[in-house]
Amino acid sequence: MAKTKRIEGVLSPVVTPFGKDYRPDADRFVRHCRWLLKSGCAGLAVFGTNSEANSMSVGEKRRLLEALVAGGVPAAALMPGTGHSALSDSIEMTKAAVDLGCAGVLMLPPFYYKGVSDEGLYRNFAEVVERVGDDRLQMYLYHIPPVSQVAISLELIDRLLSKYPGLVAGVKDSSGDWKNTKAMLDAFAKRNFDVFAGSEAFLLDNMRNGGKGCITATGNINPGPIDNVFRNWRSAEADKLQAGISATRAIVQKQPMIPALKAAIAHFGNDAQWKTCRPPLVELTSAQEDTLLRELKGNGFTMPGLTA
Amino acid sequence: MAKTKRIEGVLSPVVTPFGKDYRPDADRFVRHCRWLLKSGCAGLAVFGTNSEANSMSVGEKRRLLEALVAGGVPAAALMPGTGHSALSDSIEMTKAAVDLGCAGVLMLPPFYYKGVSDEGLYRNFAEVVERVGDDRLQMYLYHIPPVSQVAISLELIDRLLSKYPGLVAGVKDSSGDWKNTKAMLDAFAKRNFDVFAGSEAFLLDNMRNGGKGCITATGNINPGPIDNVFRNWRSAEADKLQAGISATRAIVQKQPMIPALKAAIAHFGNDAQWKTCRPPLVELTSAQEDTLLRELKGNGFTMPGLTA
Repeated sequence: MAKTKRIEGVLSPVVTPFGKDYRPDADRFVRHCRWLLKSGCAGLAVFGTNSEANSMSVGEKRRLLEALVAGGVPAAALMPGTGHSALSDSIEMTKAAVDLGCAGVLMLPPFYYKGVSDEGLYRNFAEVVERVGDDRLQMYLYHIPPVSQVAISLELIDRLLSKYPGLVAGVKDSSGDWKNTKAMLDAFAKRNFDVFAGSEAFLLDNMRNGGKGCITATGNINPGPIDNVFRNWRSAEADKLQAGISATRAIVQKQPMIPALKAAIAHFGNDAQWKTCRPPLVELTSAQEDTLLRELKGNGFTMPGLTA
Repeated sequence: MAKTKRIEGVLSPVVTPFGKDYRPDADRFVRHCRWLLKSGCAGLAVFGTNSEANSMSVGEKRRLLEALVAGGVPAAALMPGTGHSALSDSIEMTKAAVDLGCAGVLMLPPFYYKGVSDEGLYRNFAEVVERVGDDRLQMYLYHIPPVSQVAISLELIDRLLSKYPGLVAGVKDSSGDWKNTKAMLDAFAKRNFDVFAGSEAFLLDNMRNGGKGCITATGNINPGPIDNVFRNWRSAEADKLQAGISATRAIVQKQPMIPALKAAIAHFGNDAQWKTCRPPLVELTSAQEDTLLRELKGNGFTMPGLTA
């Protein structure tokens, strides 16, 4: 993990294709990752929430990560999710990512126990850093309280950043609360700490306040236009471009996000197997799928270059 | 897993000892399990919430389970927790438990995604059953919405029980809501489905309504008196006995439960290393520990036969 230039721009938390038997499909995964990097993504936050990462074992994820690198996806573009409920899983997966040369790791807090203390969360992250023991590690904290139910407070970030400057590299804020993102930017953006919005809805605001990009679900299907906002955030067109990507997101967000992304990939890539979700998630109903596709097409949405 | 006689009585979700390096300590674990079985527990629900199970990897838990059996703990007394966030982890751990001849498995629903459908949860449990593919499996469902945030509804139980009668064996209800336990008893106790209360506070009520016992945190430190209620629930003394164990629980419950159990074992077994919790949990403060021990002793509490 080179310390010279950190990853910036649009990252996709890549959705994971499964076979009919719910097993991860490495071939489709590599293909989709390559399409994303050709189509506007600066990086791939594989094994995020939208990847159904927590429905997969560490072994399954390690094999997928190795398949990506073997399939020509540069490790320098990868920011895999490596935070688990189990400390030992977090250590194993983080070490694997560092050993492969990944640009960074995106770390959930341990999410089974609720109401845990900042001291306990600090120990969790510090133990991962110490046991991985590799100064190539670039750790991005993953704040997503609507799902994890365990938050990463400003106080915790401050403590980790003070102890591990340069190594604690940034945050993905998926709180959905711009005030929280702004507070993170105000407190840490000048301390070599990179703030990514958890949704492109906040991309322009994030860039105007010192952020570095976004890591967003809809990056899976709309990477080009989102990247266009990132590249042109200083331009006179920026607000208009932002309105365009926000409109697409609003359509997708009416449906359950993960199966909606998969339905879009299945349709525009002409590959129905993509619709499968691993339990406990389920695919869209026909009615949900019809609405999604009708509204996307009505908005002029396409996925250029996507093929089965 | 013999179908002839299912486990009944008091089960302890055994707390897991860790070394200073946060690694599981198999020797202390085996010793504590043997003490529990000598002291009133009919069975051991190792790898429950109170075991910090979700802070451990599947590999760590498999090694602990093998150490128990090698250490003379009968597999027929074991009901390990095998439900994980990841479907593939649940399958691996459940298969390992069945292969070892465990009495049953206690299965959390997948707990990362929130607001999931009963259809998705059904697919998760059904997929475990089908992929384990062993009719020795006895699956107990684990309903603990205050922690998992994902509930097991009556409709889901009905559907699983109808599809897999005899194999879907029961439930641990840790909702803390007696009305819910009562509804489970009313709906399923006559369908070869064993309801365990998730706390000894409901043990007597559970027995009087057709339940089979309890699986309770404080079983780790107070197994004898709790077992006494189970054995004498039809006696004239039952309410008085119940009041006694409820009083002990009330003392413990004033503190964070898992570190409080460990502090009691450390104190009464004269073995300070027991206090260690794996992150994100932390040990009690000195003040909390002092209060806990003073109140327990004031109540005449002991742990007979516990030694370091």
